[in-house]
Amino acid sequence: MSDHESFEQFRERMNKIILDEAPLEVKRFFSLDSQTYSDGALPAKIKELLGLSLSMVLRCDDCVRYHLKQCVALGFSDEEIWEAMSVSLIVGGSIVIPHLRRAVDALKQIRGDTQ
Amino acid sequence: MSDHESFEQFRERMNKIILDEAPLEVKRFFSLDSQTYSDGALPAKIKELLGLSLSMVLRCDDCVRYHLKQCVALGFSDEEIWEAMSVSLIVGGSIVIPHLRRAVDALKQIRGDTQ
Amino acid sequence: MSDHESFEQFRERMNKIILDEAPLEVKRFFSLDSQTYSDGALPAKIKELLGLSLSMVLRCDDCVRYHLKQCVALGFSDEEIWEAMSVSLIVGGSIVIPHLRRAVDALKQIRGDTQ
Amino acid sequence: MSDHESFEQFRERMNKIILDEAPLEVKRFFSLDSQTYSDGALPAKIKELLGLSLSMVLRCDDCVRYHLKQCVALGFSDEEIWEAMSVSLIVGGSIVIPHLRRAVDALKQIRGDTQ
Amino acid sequence: MSDHESFEQFRERMNKIILDEAPLEVKRFFSLDSQTYSDGALPAKIKELLGLSLSMVLRCDDCVRYHLKQCVALGFSDEEIWEAMSVSLIVGGSIVIPHLRRAVDALKQIRGDTQ
Amino acid sequence: MSDHESFEQFRERMNKIILDEAPLEVKRFFSLDSQTYSDGALPAKIKELLGLSLSMVLRCDDCVRYHLKQCVALGFSDEEIWEAMSVSLIVGGSIVIPHLRRAVDALKQIRGDTQ
Repeated sequence: MSDHESFEQFRERMNKIILDEAPLEVKRFFSLDSQTYSDGALPAKIKELLGLSLSMVLRCDDCVRYHLKQCVALGFSDEEIWEAMSVSLIVGGSIVIPHLRRAVDALKQIRGDTQ
Repeated sequence: MSDHESFEQFRERMNKIILDEAPLEVKRFFSLDSQTYSDGALPAKIKELLGLSLSMVLRCDDCVRYHLKQCVALGFSDEEIWEAMSVSLIVGGSIVIPHLRRAVDALKQIRGDTQ
Repeated sequence: MSDHESFEQFRERMNKIILDEAPLEVKRFFSLDSQTYSDGALPAKIKELLGLSLSMVLRCDDCVRYHLKQCVALGFSDEEIWEAMSVSLIVGGSIVIPHLRRAVDALKQIRGDTQ
Repeated sequence: MSDHESFEQFRERMNKIILDEAPLEVKRFFSLDSQTYSDGALPAKIKELLGLSLSMVLRCDDCVRYHLKQCVALGFSDEEIWEAMSVSLIVGGSIVIPHLRRAVDALKQIRGDTQ
Repeated sequence: MSDHESFEQFRERMNKIILDEAPLEVKRFFSLDSQTYSDGALPAKIKELLGLSLSMVLRCDDCVRYHLKQCVALGFSDEEIWEAMSVSLIVGGSIVIPHLRRAVDALKQIRGDTQ
Repeated sequence: MSDHESFEQFRERMNKIILDEAPLEVKRFFSLDSQTYSDGALPAKIKELLGLSLSMVLRCDDCVRYHLKQCVALGFSDEEIWEAMSVSLIVGGSIVIPHLRRAVDALKQIRGDTQ
């Protein structure tokens, strides 16, 4: 990431390069990844919560931040988000805690709380 | 597991030993683990779906089977269960597939389908 | 897996159910998974070796067995297969050893060696 | 593993094949793996406890069983073994539980308890 | 983490928010996490060494740094700490190396060595 | 890492300390790690591609960057590197994507493209 670039700008710039230069399989996977979170037998909202919970247990800060944004946009309350993260904490153990701290920080930023 | 013992019998026998002989921290963790899936800001039903999805991405067959049973008992349709498992497949990749196969087999058994 | 069923029969039976009953995303992922190992800038043969090495480091016995079969079919020698597995062992550490043992056993069976 | 073969027999048979047929790097790694658990600044006994705890959090049943045997042979009490496993449970979360159950079963067998 | 904030300040600020806002299960888990490292059948000192070794193999830099501090405070020599980290390296493989580098750097800082 | 130090400088400085102060097992492992990527039944070039693919699926940015450099130095084209990374993406799932983004960025830097 260059110095003055935010995470969102980096993400967008790289996605552009990937969709431009990656082999067909990668592009298809990216498209499949989007489809997977759309409404179906389960509403998109629940799928985003699954995405958040999975990202937390797999300890991927970027993925957690992304799904937190989606969960907030889709109307989940902090209490609901906290409970999804608790399930990940209990399933994944204390190794998840540093990611939980960063998730809490990210959630505050997304909600626009001054800190 | 002894030869004539089912997974459920083994699970129950070991849980009994653990609750009898384990240190306090382990007992407290087991109790905390149960509490985590009860109704709160999120309904217990959604938490079980999270549990299923997390177990699948972490590739734990015993955990998948346990949460499948809970998800069936709490009224999820096969279509809904399939979609939760799809999210785990996309997040976790093809390494999840052997566990998906065993999950499909377990789900059929839980539903009592003859095969 | 039912009692008299081999791993290959189980795999095939489950794949059939999955391609019949799974949501579109799962079917697309299965198809994408196949495409990924076909000839491209890298020959299919090298991709199967990558698949073997990845399966070993991620400690998935079923996946290792599958890619071992492909690697043998595509003409890799035991020496070459061993070296791909060594890289996985060094990258993944001693936790890989039990899977290496089972891989060696599987390779002998695939080669049809009597033991 | 052939039908009438125990885990220990399989382990020994495969180790023999590996030390016979594997590339030099694999043999060296096996030898390095043994050296790592010998007395040094830390006594071998503590290193075996580390080995047990690591095997548990990485969810490798074969490795857990192996280190349990070593820990028993080196004189750890059940209480001490339990506490090492508790640390792994808290660090690794509920996904560790099925492996904890199998570890408890293995420990009973190693101690020769009838059940 | 805001720009002028150290890791320790961030950790403390987030822990405060978590203990203030998190659901009961999370608070209980944090408390259980602390209890697990206290004296019992195994001394607290050994449990911290387990914590360090587990954090290393699970590749969590924040957790490694935390347990390094505890291990130093509880009187472990560099030689002992190195040996615990060697076990994690052998168990976890070369993928652990970048975390080992950062651990060595952190240990130097904790010991107050000029570099 | 100190403020004005690059990743390569940090890596080199730490490796020097490790080879100076680490126990024999760690030094042997570092040496074994190097040997593993040398020409054998498989050419060094293929082994570096395995190293890249494994680093990607295990989600280690430092390891990915290192093997990308080696792969470029050994003459792999971007198309070939992309395909090795696609296999890792399909095997490891969407959780690999943030690391893929950083790998693409690193590859551009290694190739010296202005961005």
